[in-house]
Amino acid sequence: MQFETLKWVGGIDGFLELTDQRRLPGVYEKLNCQTPEQLFEAIVTLAVRGAPAIGVSAAYGVCIAGRQLSQDISLTDALVELKKAIDYLASSRPTAVNLFWALERMQQKMTVFAGDCPDGSVDMLRQILLDEAHAICAEDQAMCQAIGQHGMPLIPEGGAVLTHCNAGALATAGIGTALAPMYAAHEAGRRFTVYVDETRPLLQGARLTAWELTQAGIDAVLICDNMAASLMSAGKIDAVITGADRIVANGDTANKIGTQGVSILAKHFNVPFYIAAPSSTFDLSIETGKQIPIEERSANEVKTIEKVSIAPEGVDVYNPAFDVTDAGDITAIITEKGVIDQLEADQIRHFLE
Amino acid sequence: MQFETLKWVGGIDGFLELTDQRRLPGVYEKLNCQTPEQLFEAIVTLAVRGAPAIGVSAAYGVCIAGRQLSQDISLTDALVELKKAIDYLASSRPTAVNLFWALERMQQKMTVFAGDCPDGSVDMLRQILLDEAHAICAEDQAMCQAIGQHGMPLIPEGGAVLTHCNAGALATAGIGTALAPMYAAHEAGRRFTVYVDETRPLLQGARLTAWELTQAGIDAVLICDNMAASLMSAGKIDAVITGADRIVANGDTANKIGTQGVSILAKHFNVPFYIAAPSSTFDLSIETGKQIPIEERSANEVKTIEKVSIAPEGVDVYNPAFDVTDAGDITAIITEKGVIDQLEADQIRHFLE
Repeated sequence: MQFETLKWVGGIDGFLELTDQRRLPGVYEKLNCQTPEQLFEAIVTLAVRGAPAIGVSAAYGVCIAGRQLSQDISLTDALVELKKAIDYLASSRPTAVNLFWALERMQQKMTVFAGDCPDGSVDMLRQILLDEAHAICAEDQAMCQAIGQHGMPLIPEGGAVLTHCNAGALATAGIGTALAPMYAAHEAGRRFTVYVDETRPLLQGARLTAWELTQAGIDAVLICDNMAASLMSAGKIDAVITGADRIVANGDTANKIGTQGVSILAKHFNVPFYIAAPSSTFDLSIETGKQIPIEERSANEVKTIEKVSIAPEGVDVYNPAFDVTDAGDITAIITEKGVIDQLEADQIRHFLE
Repeated sequence: MQFETLKWVGGIDGFLELTDQRRLPGVYEKLNCQTPEQLFEAIVTLAVRGAPAIGVSAAYGVCIAGRQLSQDISLTDALVELKKAIDYLASSRPTAVNLFWALERMQQKMTVFAGDCPDGSVDMLRQILLDEAHAICAEDQAMCQAIGQHGMPLIPEGGAVLTHCNAGALATAGIGTALAPMYAAHEAGRRFTVYVDETRPLLQGARLTAWELTQAGIDAVLICDNMAASLMSAGKIDAVITGADRIVANGDTANKIGTQGVSILAKHFNVPFYIAAPSSTFDLSIETGKQIPIEERSANEVKTIEKVSIAPEGVDVYNPAFDVTDAGDITAIITEKGVIDQLEADQIRHFLE
């Protein structure tokens, strides 16, 4: 990649360097997080976003908290302080599963260390925590690579794929999920075009996906969300690949608003529609998409763009954050473990075991 | 209506008053056109837009040109001057069928007058031209009313309809085409909600449709274009009604980009999808939608919103101005002559005869 979404700089006294996504695509700038407060702010204000990237960042956030421990603190007191930092970081994005998962892993590492080495030094603990954060980061990168390899065959030479929102390198520590097959195919020398839905209301496609693909030298063409049918009807799209927020037991998939519409158009025009997501995105505790609650967001996200008003003040707005794509409209789900092409509850459960 | 899209003020020495649509929805302001140059500028810069509104405005434009004739000009010279004004106005929007049609009607009126009354006065000619422009305006208003009456039964009490772009009062001299059934139903005391697609890239839905519906006291809810599937899948849409730019012999319909996608979603969810348009929108010289050329517009329309950049500079853009909805995805076409619900070439030709 031409950029790194997040990178730990230095040893146990190092810091977390983020690509500041609030300023993209106009300005490409690094944001250094040296305190938990700075990282908290970065997560809340979407300087770093995307479930995997948030998880990895939060793991490094515990290492940042380690920097702030006083020189002569006891191990017991250090554990208390770090637990406080974990709770604080966990409150930055209340619904982010990867965030909780990564912080829980760091907490467990602490607990095990405290049990195994009650006389260990704080610096030893900090090194172990940094190693664990590096491991979480490396696993994320490996997950992306694996999705890329499994998904690469779906992108035909000379063809074109469509993606929605940003499930790219900017959303992970690696080469992304939905975009991973494109990076892998590009790396392998394949030539193809990626049509990028701008993804209203927050324009993650226009701002982030279009930026990272052009940075990588991949041929990207930006469209408004309502232009996909026109492209498909002209036979210009060979496949659609998007990410996922949550995949439930029967394969129904919640993802950024607009995904469902694209999946229905793809089915109408016989274009294969793929979801690319790590296996951790599956939530088998929910049976079907109907049971997934739909979060509604602020009217201002629709009525203003970059602070410019585009609608009459008094008008009502409906602004669901995501929609649910029917498993029947998904050709296959690309995971780091392979491709699930039989989207039935038994097959999915069996595949994930 | 709470506003008039266009209005002639005064007698033969009067002027054309337009609602300046460039400043909506933020500012509601009138624009007075007292010279052909002012009207030309208003048409080019979209202060007035919508095929019917442009046609009526251009007819009045010939009357405005009449104001500029010198007091002692001969009828022969006046006819030459007015012909120049017609040619000038015709060049304002090169592909606007209604514009040419209205100006041609004014030209014919001039030719007939010159033949019938070679000794007539210039003022007599000017009065006849103003009467003709008023007639064109009144016919447009009557057309809108008739579409409203024919379409009204399709809007259920307590229901909700979805519309795309602006085929409303702001696009005509009357109550619009796609929005006419909604105004008629509202006038009749029916209660319902109109979901308004914002209609990227130029946001005619957010800027114009949302504005005129809320002005009229109709319950309007603005959505991003990619949210329609979510609403339909929740059973919240009873019907879709949009306008049309051109309807060809087999019923295939060119309209604002995004219309085709909505029609496919509507079919998928068993929601009736209607086109509302005057019979003058039919172009029977073209057999199927495949033969309609698709105009591509500037990348800047997508990459900037209200002059704010939303995408990386180097990215390519695909920006088709409209798409073609398959006749098979249209439930019926509402015209001023009635509703065509059998969209086959023979039936359509027979209906229009």
